[in-house]
Amino acid sequence: MHKAIGIFDSGVGGLTVVKEIIRQLPGEDIVYFGDTARVPYGTKSARLVGRYAVQDAKFLMGCGIKLLVAACNTVSAIGWEELKREVPVPVVGVIEPGCAAAVKVSKTGKIGVIGTEATISSGIYPEVVSRLDSTVEVMCKACPLLVPLVEEGWLDGEVTGLVVRRYLSGLKGKVDTLIPGCTHYPLLRVVLEQEMGEETVVVDSAGAVAGCVKELLREKKLLAPSGGGGRNRYFVSDDREGFSRMARLFLGEEAIVVEEIDIEKY
Amino acid sequence: MHKAIGIFDSGVGGLTVVKEIIRQLPGEDIVYFGDTARVPYGTKSARLVGRYAVQDAKFLMGCGIKLLVAACNTVSAIGWEELKREVPVPVVGVIEPGCAAAVKVSKTGKIGVIGTEATISSGIYPEVVSRLDSTVEVMCKACPLLVPLVEEGWLDGEVTGLVVRRYLSGLKGKVDTLIPGCTHYPLLRVVLEQEMGEETVVVDSAGAVAGCVKELLREKKLLAPSGGGGRNRYFVSDDREGFSRMARLFLGEEAIVVEEIDIEKY
Repeated sequence: MHKAIGIFDSGVGGLTVVKEIIRQLPGEDIVYFGDTARVPYGTKSARLVGRYAVQDAKFLMGCGIKLLVAACNTVSAIGWEELKREVPVPVVGVIEPGCAAAVKVSKTGKIGVIGTEATISSGIYPEVVSRLDSTVEVMCKACPLLVPLVEEGWLDGEVTGLVVRRYLSGLKGKVDTLIPGCTHYPLLRVVLEQEMGEETVVVDSAGAVAGCVKELLREKKLLAPSGGGGRNRYFVSDDREGFSRMARLFLGEEAIVVEEIDIEKY
Repeated sequence: MHKAIGIFDSGVGGLTVVKEIIRQLPGEDIVYFGDTARVPYGTKSARLVGRYAVQDAKFLMGCGIKLLVAACNTVSAIGWEELKREVPVPVVGVIEPGCAAAVKVSKTGKIGVIGTEATISSGIYPEVVSRLDSTVEVMCKACPLLVPLVEEGWLDGEVTGLVVRRYLSGLKGKVDTLIPGCTHYPLLRVVLEQEMGEETVVVDSAGAVAGCVKELLREKKLLAPSGGGGRNRYFVSDDREGFSRMARLFLGEEAIVVEEIDIEKY
């Protein structure tokens, strides 16, 4: 029996990464955990986020996984070291793949990053980008309202356009590449592209993560045998109904089966 | 030594109630707990909210309190029975005082209520209002974006006006009284009044809670002796800095001292 890809996030956001992994690796089994009892991580301290991430990983390890995706920007930013230390399988975060894609496409060497307050104030994006290419300049902007807008389902329209315009006003025209540094943001892709204009590339950050997973599995000879089923399981720590509802928005699929676990036990 | 008034909320929202209690009862000591490690409660199940509320109350009981205010609509809606059962001092919630004030001022017998998704879908407001006056008609509207807007500090301006207008469009002209059914909403009072128009009374729900606390303390002869200091202590379960920053917005005061505790121990 081949093992699954484990993916976790504080809530539903990581489903944008699931969607891309399903698209790029249709034969792989996926186990997803959304920590809906303790969402959001973005407002919590590094110490707490690290502890939560390790618990989430332990639950998924128990499901039998060959690779772990921390599909949560907060964990990838401030819980990363602790997570890597505790997890025996390869771990992929959501920050480096997007940064690498951005560095690759940027011609002016000026990259913009948007994310939650916690992600931006962690300073992780400029740090990772400068590790990849120290000549690149990174401009960051925290956009706290974008996650609630996505979760309200207001993916376009006047309000969303105005909020995005207000947040992006300081970046527009100053960068040639924008990294949507939050797993919710792929759902705002159209508005982000509209507001940034044609001269700016909006990086497909979820796609970049999936590409990185594919590459790593191939390298480690862990790819599922072709023709495999692609069985997906979804777990949450609270509110199965709310998660299922939101999952339809994120996955664009009909009803999924969601199971509930007590994450404090891990 | 006289005892304090204990107040808790999942986060900062309850500070609108603190502000009103300080105004109406300046001689009382206050101990506030914001459960910032587990915020928000609104997305969590009734079972979990009940458990959290009891833990929060236990921490405050240990500080020596004579009365407890559950300054959290989610707890007042879905954690109430469990909380009342476990707490030996009088408990005041944030739902009944606002409902009573609304029933008192409404002339047409048509009242609107806005709140978070969890509060509105609990059905608690129509239930409480109809217990007070079964002839009154209640129209409810969930407004998930208003809390993030307040926490972003966008208390007025184009975006906030548009969002409020969109949420209130179904209530405007149909009710003569509006209950802001969330402890964050008093900060949006001006916009709410503007959008509802002059014919609608926007209830001062935080003021109504403070009035209820005053009444109950007087009735039980628990009021602090006049001339008392009014010492306020603030505790959180995570992110003291973020709470302090937000507290300035809510209390309109300069820096407050915030201490951190581990709520899972209670």
